Amino acid sequence: MSRAIYLYNTASRLKELFKPIHEGHVGIYVCGPTVYGDAHLGHARPGITYDVLVRLLRNLGYKVRYVRNITDVGHLENDADEGEDKIAKKARLEQLEPMEVVQYYTIRYEEAMKALGVNPPSIEPRASGHIIEQIALIEKILEHGYAYISNGSVYFDVEKYNKDFKYGVLSGRELGEMISNTRELDGQSDKHSPYDFALWKKAAPEHIMHWPSPWSEGFPGWHLECSAMSAKYLGEEFDIHGGGMDLMFPHHECELAQNTAARGRGGVHYWIHNNMITINGKKMGKSYGNFITLEELFTGKHPLLQKAYSPMTIRFFILQAHYRSTLDFSNEALQAAEKGLKKLFQAVRDTDGIATDEKASDAGVAKLYEDIYDSLCDDLNTPVALSYVFEAVNVVNKIKDKSLQINMAGKVLLQKIFKDVLTGILGLQDEQASGADAATIGGLMDIILKERQQARSQKDWAKCDALRDDLAKLGIRVKDTKEGSEWSLE
Amino acid sequence: MSRAIYLYNTASRLKELFKPIHEGHVGIYVCGPTVYGDAHLGHARPGITYDVLVRLLRNLGYKVRYVRNITDVGHLENDADEGEDKIAKKARLEQLEPMEVVQYYTIRYEEAMKALGVNPPSIEPRASGHIIEQIALIEKILEHGYAYISNGSVYFDVEKYNKDFKYGVLSGRELGEMISNTRELDGQSDKHSPYDFALWKKAAPEHIMHWPSPWSEGFPGWHLECSAMSAKYLGEEFDIHGGGMDLMFPHHECELAQNTAARGRGGVHYWIHNNMITINGKKMGKSYGNFITLEELFTGKHPLLQKAYSPMTIRFFILQAHYRSTLDFSNEALQAAEKGLKKLFQAVRDTDGIATDEKASDAGVAKLYEDIYDSLCDDLNTPVALSYVFEAVNVVNKIKDKSLQINMAGKVLLQKIFKDVLTGILGLQDEQASGADAATIGGLMDIILKERQQARSQKDWAKCDALRDDLAKLGIRVKDTKEGSEWSLE
Repeated sequence: MSRAIYLYNTASRLKELFKPIHEGHVGIYVCGPTVYGDAHLGHARPGITYDVLVRLLRNLGYKVRYVRNITDVGHLENDADEGEDKIAKKARLEQLEPMEVVQYYTIRYEEAMKALGVNPPSIEPRASGHIIEQIALIEKILEHGYAYISNGSVYFDVEKYNKDFKYGVLSGRELGEMISNTRELDGQSDKHSPYDFALWKKAAPEHIMHWPSPWSEGFPGWHLECSAMSAKYLGEEFDIHGGGMDLMFPHHECELAQNTAARGRGGVHYWIHNNMITINGKKMGKSYGNFITLEELFTGKHPLLQKAYSPMTIRFFILQAHYRSTLDFSNEALQAAEKGLKKLFQAVRDTDGIATDEKASDAGVAKLYEDIYDSLCDDLNTPVALSYVFEAVNVVNKIKDKSLQINMAGKVLLQKIFKDVLTGILGLQDEQASGADAATIGGLMDIILKERQQARSQKDWAKCDALRDDLAKLGIRVKDTKEGSEWSLE
Repeated sequence: MSRAIYLYNTASRLKELFKPIHEGHVGIYVCGPTVYGDAHLGHARPGITYDVLVRLLRNLGYKVRYVRNITDVGHLENDADEGEDKIAKKARLEQLEPMEVVQYYTIRYEEAMKALGVNPPSIEPRASGHIIEQIALIEKILEHGYAYISNGSVYFDVEKYNKDFKYGVLSGRELGEMISNTRELDGQSDKHSPYDFALWKKAAPEHIMHWPSPWSEGFPGWHLECSAMSAKYLGEEFDIHGGGMDLMFPHHECELAQNTAARGRGGVHYWIHNNMITINGKKMGKSYGNFITLEELFTGKHPLLQKAYSPMTIRFFILQAHYRSTLDFSNEALQAAEKGLKKLFQAVRDTDGIATDEKASDAGVAKLYEDIYDSLCDDLNTPVALSYVFEAVNVVNKIKDKSLQINMAGKVLLQKIFKDVLTGILGLQDEQASGADAATIGGLMDIILKERQQARSQKDWAKCDALRDDLAKLGIRVKDTKEGSEWSLE
């Protein structure tokens, strides 16, 4: 490929040169949503982070197969092995078939991702659609002696695995120090040790989602699906596994253990984890009263929000932080992002019209172009890349001011930065100028501002003000400048 | 429920009063797409027909569970039991994993349906996600003696079934008269009789989609998924099964036979079939060169198309024919539909502004309202319902002309017809006025037309003409009337 890319590998705690298993091809698996509720900020960050990684890899010339699953069964309350399945519980509360809950929230999740400019993955497998593959995986783990059957359920034997392979390497934990996150509930006694986790759970009589298996009518444990589906669609050894940092333990640790117990190897070459989002400095959670869904953000309907924030504002805001840093949401920070994004796309729109001068240089744009790629290839450093994009914005504004000249090569490269990098890789779109309607609005504004300009030249201030007020009612702000009038949609 | 609804049942060849199995609830299963190519006109008609049926049932107060499947495996070339799986073949040609093909075309199908105003079903199960259920169904059919194992595959024994239950009742065929649509290909000899169809196919070594089963590594026959998934999500006995008339034989006939062989009963209370679409009088098909995808229709990019037709034009056009009639697509017919739809929504937009007079009557609107529901409840007679909607349009236009008066109750009922029936049940939306942008455009037009009105009153014809020409460049046509100016977006 044209450029080297470095990625921070959680497994080694090092930034490593990325080398794919098959030259020119990348297989990437990312843990997707459990579809029992609306997509929230916690979904936006991994959605956008891995979208940018995939867009970058494709831009560099890789053929990428991107698999992101839908968890539609087996994800129990509190991520523990006991309790009620989250989807089944929602179905019971809403008096629906579990798959009606799955359908409803899957569509809403995908709509939210689309709004955020997140491209769909290449394959979107569902846990409930891969029961056969999960049963086959359990059989292998049992055969290798790292699991046991207990009262119709099958559990992974963590202590035995730990002796042979060491459990906890990914998250850097020692078995002795771990506190089990399982609670003492019905069925807890089936486990030999609190460390153990379920591979297959026998269904209680009232449980509505279950399938036949060699051990019982039941359902797979939550961790199993990712081990089964990543191998099915990417092979037992594949390049990149991504997900939120909260999934590192126990989910990814269990995945790694399952892979190793079944196949003698972890299978994942690069483990990548995005950091968490906080809200006004606090962890987001339903119990904290600061749980904000994406729809609430897009519409502004949440007591913590001063206004609505557009999907691109959210995307831009998320990309302004490095994916491995925590990111704090606040109205101030979002409004600053909104302003920055507006400034950015104003320059993008202005670029086509700037004059060139063949006696001038490229105004440093070629170096900016390289700097942007270097930052993105340095473990996806989007904040640094964006700072260089803003240097390109400054170049455009200086040329408009006539305090700087640029040659045609420089202008073409500016357009390339905005088209290939800003839109192509970072996935940011000009919301003001999307679609035919925006063009129509722009055209109508030209007509109205021409009228207003005429009124100004005739010093008909009453008419000028009346037009401005009429436009304000439509949410359009007019700013008068020496050259004429600028407008923006609020 | 508030009104009786009659549906034509293919099984009885009669229009029957619809009685649901469970009071107030309706379970409906419709055969969805095989996702190996772009959605075309042949997908639009069942998509829209069953969408209107479900919307009507919900409007009448039923709680509807609408299941529409995605066929992502097992649909062989020529719909026969032999040959290559359509999805696997596409994957091989495009050098993709079959599930990448499935993902790509599923998303495109759903986008096309969304554009057509077709609501998503309640559950959208995939064949590949229900292999366990399909294997269990085969085991039952084998157990009851209506299938046999042959060289790792399992076939349905049509002659034996015919003796006990009679095969062909749905499509009205006699076994003796049937010509098998299977071709003589590899594996053909595994069948005892050409009538027989595959329940399970042993996978050839090069076949990429296969699962373990008691008989072989293989994959399910195409007809099986609908029998398995309808029972899983709607019960072994359910209300309505829909699909295109081309699916009546062999697909639905085989489904019925599988259900009966496994469970002793057909399970479906009402079989509903929509008729086919022709293009300029000819059957649509890739080999006829008249195969038009929905995207081609929406963009106008097909040699047979004179222009682009909007999704709502297609929807309106389809609803202008009864679902059991054939429907012929032509540029003339589509352009007539486009014109009719414009007229319709002009009246809808005008309705809010019409004056009322309490000395007047309801202008016959209450009767129109009843007539519309009566037509819809009479086996979904959308063309007749639309003719009454157009009578409502005439009422609006006459009131605007001041040749008719209406009281407030009549006006409210007009609004109800347009909101509840036209948009709510028929799913037709005003494409000119969708979204916030449309509101902005409307607001800007008000400002410009006020300017123009002023110019007219000052007899400044040059300015009037200039404004009209500027608007024409944006595709906006202005028509001057006595009361002022009307405008429309081309």
